Amino acid sequence: MSWNTFGRVLRMTTWGESHGPAIACVLDGCPPGIGLSEGYIQPFLDARRPGQNKFTTQRQEPDAVRILSGVFEGRTTGTPISLQIENIDQRSKDYSEVAKSYRPGHADYAYDAKYGFRDYRGGGRSSARETAMRVAAGAVARLVIPEVSIVAYVAEIGGDGIDPARFDPQEIARNPFWCPDPQAAKRWEALVDGARKAGSSLGAVVECVARGVPAGWGAPVYAKLDAELAGAMMGINAVKGVEIGDGFGAARLSGEQNADPMRPASSDNGDHSPQFTANHAGGISGGISTRQPVTCRVAFKPTSSILTPVETIDSDGQATEIRTKGRHDPCVGIRGTPVVEAMMALVLADHKLLHRAQCG
Amino acid sequence: MSWNTFGRVLRMTTWGESHGPAIACVLDGCPPGIGLSEGYIQPFLDARRPGQNKFTTQRQEPDAVRILSGVFEGRTTGTPISLQIENIDQRSKDYSEVAKSYRPGHADYAYDAKYGFRDYRGGGRSSARETAMRVAAGAVARLVIPEVSIVAYVAEIGGDGIDPARFDPQEIARNPFWCPDPQAAKRWEALVDGARKAGSSLGAVVECVARGVPAGWGAPVYAKLDAELAGAMMGINAVKGVEIGDGFGAARLSGEQNADPMRPASSDNGDHSPQFTANHAGGISGGISTRQPVTCRVAFKPTSSILTPVETIDSDGQATEIRTKGRHDPCVGIRGTPVVEAMMALVLADHKLLHRAQCG
Amino acid sequence: MSWNTFGRVLRMTTWGESHGPAIACVLDGCPPGIGLSEGYIQPFLDARRPGQNKFTTQRQEPDAVRILSGVFEGRTTGTPISLQIENIDQRSKDYSEVAKSYRPGHADYAYDAKYGFRDYRGGGRSSARETAMRVAAGAVARLVIPEVSIVAYVAEIGGDGIDPARFDPQEIARNPFWCPDPQAAKRWEALVDGARKAGSSLGAVVECVARGVPAGWGAPVYAKLDAELAGAMMGINAVKGVEIGDGFGAARLSGEQNADPMRPASSDNGDHSPQFTANHAGGISGGISTRQPVTCRVAFKPTSSILTPVETIDSDGQATEIRTKGRHDPCVGIRGTPVVEAMMALVLADHKLLHRAQCG
Amino acid sequence: MSWNTFGRVLRMTTWGESHGPAIACVLDGCPPGIGLSEGYIQPFLDARRPGQNKFTTQRQEPDAVRILSGVFEGRTTGTPISLQIENIDQRSKDYSEVAKSYRPGHADYAYDAKYGFRDYRGGGRSSARETAMRVAAGAVARLVIPEVSIVAYVAEIGGDGIDPARFDPQEIARNPFWCPDPQAAKRWEALVDGARKAGSSLGAVVECVARGVPAGWGAPVYAKLDAELAGAMMGINAVKGVEIGDGFGAARLSGEQNADPMRPASSDNGDHSPQFTANHAGGISGGISTRQPVTCRVAFKPTSSILTPVETIDSDGQATEIRTKGRHDPCVGIRGTPVVEAMMALVLADHKLLHRAQCG
Repeated sequence: MSWNTFGRVLRMTTWGESHGPAIACVLDGCPPGIGLSEGYIQPFLDARRPGQNKFTTQRQEPDAVRILSGVFEGRTTGTPISLQIENIDQRSKDYSEVAKSYRPGHADYAYDAKYGFRDYRGGGRSSARETAMRVAAGAVARLVIPEVSIVAYVAEIGGDGIDPARFDPQEIARNPFWCPDPQAAKRWEALVDGARKAGSSLGAVVECVARGVPAGWGAPVYAKLDAELAGAMMGINAVKGVEIGDGFGAARLSGEQNADPMRPASSDNGDHSPQFTANHAGGISGGISTRQPVTCRVAFKPTSSILTPVETIDSDGQATEIRTKGRHDPCVGIRGTPVVEAMMALVLADHKLLHRAQCG
Repeated sequence: MSWNTFGRVLRMTTWGESHGPAIACVLDGCPPGIGLSEGYIQPFLDARRPGQNKFTTQRQEPDAVRILSGVFEGRTTGTPISLQIENIDQRSKDYSEVAKSYRPGHADYAYDAKYGFRDYRGGGRSSARETAMRVAAGAVARLVIPEVSIVAYVAEIGGDGIDPARFDPQEIARNPFWCPDPQAAKRWEALVDGARKAGSSLGAVVECVARGVPAGWGAPVYAKLDAELAGAMMGINAVKGVEIGDGFGAARLSGEQNADPMRPASSDNGDHSPQFTANHAGGISGGISTRQPVTCRVAFKPTSSILTPVETIDSDGQATEIRTKGRHDPCVGIRGTPVVEAMMALVLADHKLLHRAQCG
Repeated sequence: MSWNTFGRVLRMTTWGESHGPAIACVLDGCPPGIGLSEGYIQPFLDARRPGQNKFTTQRQEPDAVRILSGVFEGRTTGTPISLQIENIDQRSKDYSEVAKSYRPGHADYAYDAKYGFRDYRGGGRSSARETAMRVAAGAVARLVIPEVSIVAYVAEIGGDGIDPARFDPQEIARNPFWCPDPQAAKRWEALVDGARKAGSSLGAVVECVARGVPAGWGAPVYAKLDAELAGAMMGINAVKGVEIGDGFGAARLSGEQNADPMRPASSDNGDHSPQFTANHAGGISGGISTRQPVTCRVAFKPTSSILTPVETIDSDGQATEIRTKGRHDPCVGIRGTPVVEAMMALVLADHKLLHRAQCG
Repeated sequence: MSWNTFGRVLRMTTWGESHGPAIACVLDGCPPGIGLSEGYIQPFLDARRPGQNKFTTQRQEPDAVRILSGVFEGRTTGTPISLQIENIDQRSKDYSEVAKSYRPGHADYAYDAKYGFRDYRGGGRSSARETAMRVAAGAVARLVIPEVSIVAYVAEIGGDGIDPARFDPQEIARNPFWCPDPQAAKRWEALVDGARKAGSSLGAVVECVARGVPAGWGAPVYAKLDAELAGAMMGINAVKGVEIGDGFGAARLSGEQNADPMRPASSDNGDHSPQFTANHAGGISGGISTRQPVTCRVAFKPTSSILTPVETIDSDGQATEIRTKGRHDPCVGIRGTPVVEAMMALVLADHKLLHRAQCG
């Protein structure tokens, strides 16, 4: 089933193919009266934009967003916000090979099996280009939750992880890898460039932290905040794993080690929320936020489009092999980082509104 | 927001508290004409039932399910199926401590922060007892997808994993751990019993495989099959991580290593589906099933209820400590295994129907 | 498709057949902290209860409601509220005729055409008995909107209407017809009794007014407040028409006649809302409430179960005729009146919460 | 709450304001492989298009639709179909009066009350211009239900009804009123023109018939086919009443008169469906289609925008009066007729897919 809407009351619907005239989203349910302009959204898109350095695909897309509805005199009206990006760099290339052969790791075979045929140009609807619209919608979602600050960064590429002791939040935007550890960033230059030159690709792990989430967002049984985050992150192209808090690491701790003890609020700030002395839970208990930072980790597989030939079949079922020539990211996890932030923002904003609906 | 319904067209709604009169679910959208009886569902519940051995909680609940609607003369009618279990073993114990103090790792504080108060008896709505209803609904969901066989097993307890070379599917139901490796099962006896005696608890990793899923189930962008599975699994009590296929391991592979090459269908069985020579993807590409086995891994944290005292605060914000006396599983992942199977069945059955809606 | 859930954030799911063990509903999304008891709900059910006089069916059902979840120490907890009624008076009668023949005006043929078979005992899931649960859920919904008062009454039976000049709100609960005009109530006694004795039945028009709805509830395009009301009312058994405000009468007015002019707020009450000098619109403009009374009119067809024989076919397609012996309401619109109130309450409460979600 | 999506599995989301850059819809869930082109959709839009004669508004909009996604090589791909219309004739007129004063019968006051402000240009999001997108989406929906033929017509204008004895289906498209009775069409010319010249407006009743709907579409309790139609129709701008089958007329019939007797299938066509000898029910029993024509009647109020001044207040609460100068339809029901057809198509197509989901 085609299902292109995300969210329960703050709902994002996206449409568009990689090589169609445009990609776009409609964001419905946004509160009214929020200042919003194209100039505010554009930097978020620029962060995800391709073609910025040799570590990402060389497709050149300005990705200039237009607001086509839902904003009047600079403020959201409460009606659906349409955000649209024209596709500019649709190289008139030869698609005959990809039209006929199934690229392993891509949706080609699955789409054909489901729908009988597919728009094969640039991956069509399955292209990661769709995630640009999540970034645009996520930028708006951030305005719905001004109390929250969200930051994602790459914690590991090709199995080479950052050193937490060298974590520097200022560093994240300073290198092409969203890497908070300057030494790791240096190593990754060689690593990613090597993979690119070898016609190969690398996976990555992205971490995301949301600070300022008050206690009480989420739902007790289904639509738990962690379950929604897991679904949101796993739905990003190339993602194969999601952890909340300690994730799989928690499965190796004892109950005492994994507990997040609570201490009384510090007396001097008038805030009576408990002070937690650990955050193994990633800020969520029983599906509901606890006011600790909400944390998750997301595993991206290596880019499936590689120059190295891979065995496959064509649509007639005959054996062949395929190497993906085009312009591709040697490590999709890098450009996935702003998408992780966007999905975090969309989930939190939706649950802020849901919480307000029930609890006022 | 309270949100107690799971699924899009095959929809399960659950209700009930651990120590209320009953727990139950309503399964709506089930196809008509399917043979269904209490006798068919009961063994699935028995598999999850507490009190069966010293490795699980000693609460004694027969968990006898009653079908109260939606079945006539032994067949589903297409109208909502109500499944209900009376709560029998509600020990009249003293809840004054848990009523006043927040148990770390439990939903106590989060519920109070969200709703202002909570039903504290046995965890109320946040009790894992709710998952019995998922198992009951999952048993029905299996009947909707007779072409699929689902099996889950425990692959790791407290960091001690099975040896894949000793994997024996027959073994899974023969030991109290759903463990496919007889030697690991032996080791776990000592491990889990030791944790129990020490007033501690252990985490676990559960793996689940669904065979027979045809190509084409799932959705291209949101409601991707892997995203729905991730949300379903992360929504199980105590789960902190989910992987599809190779999961976080895929982030450490190169593009060539991670590819799932395709070969032509074997000529002699009349089946023209491709033969994949690997399954790093876990049976899902672009959110859609490929006819390979659908695989996922689920991380359960150690039971939060432990005899060892943990620092916490009470509802007045004063420092205290709490040790959970009652009857608890030393490793919740064990009894979570049938729940993982149930959620897999519910997601797959829902997507079978959704696929049929759009593609006939 | 079976779809047994109503509402967007305040969601009611019902289950149960007329002659199964019980009928019930699950109300999810209710705000926490609201005082709720069985004693509060029961009078609403008693108002709809059968067997109270000769103008309604003689089936004797105490319809005693039990709260099985979602309430703790007398207050709603924010988790799903389960309301359940045991079916007591399931006369062991002979259903062989209705099992085999299709009763015109009933769902018999449609259910068989859709599902292949049906639970024919007392109409099964299609029985108006299901509406008891709407009344129970509606009673809870009223507590979510204490600012609103809702009253429905019968305005017409068998084409014989009330005289608006004799409208007396106190009269409504004093006669067995929910009739605000004492003279009409007198006439209807003979009318309804005559139909009953003749083995016939009568239709009715029910009007409903909700006062105190603030301006701003509803939605601009889909999920308009009037559209939701229309769907809610048309979904009541036996309803064939719905009007908001002047309804079909508005189609016969000129634009000037139909306008609802606005005058400034009266200066002395500190309320700056406009004073409308007419309410042709029924309190809703552009799908959003205007603070005028929300009004609707609902047409109930005559009871389809009549003693007079009607031509029909049996499930083998053979010609036959059927007369419905059992115990039936000569005019279902009468007992439909509390159901109309309940659906009004459910729609308004849902939209109060939705409005709060978006607009705070 | 803003809620701009219609449908359950075939889902239409619309966006855009009357005087913004464009209006558009996204249709999700459409089956794949259906031939679709702009040339197919355009005539449906032309039928609704303004400016065609003196009986409709003189706004000149080509309403040229573009397909921006979801169609590849002339066929639907199963992914979201984006349909977009640029707004051309946005006269740079003086909106200061409508910006400040509330037009009675319009959404002006309600929007301000809900959202705090509004896009007042041409009615913004509340403009009936949005219904163009329903017509476009409805055209696609028709392709999903090729077995069904849908026709709507105007049955009454300003209280002057057609004569059923003169009903000629060929006549409907021959006059500017979608009127099946040539004599009524003649009378309406004078009637509508008179209203226009008098600065007044007229209401209308539109009837819609869908033939070829098989038995079994719909749902038993909520999401009944008639309830969904009622919601769909009442959600059209200016609609105040909806009837299924005999509607309010049924409330004046006796049970015998209102019965739709069934007779055996005619022997010679191999079709074993019953022959109904009447259709008071409008083709729906118990919320499910019976294979009879599905019929409904829809009441449109007179256009609220009239030249005759009406008393109102401004946004400061001061008394004023307003006359709507612009270009307006003297009878919105006329141009509402293609919208009624579109909503019928959307509801039926959605329920065809829903039925297929559950019942195969």
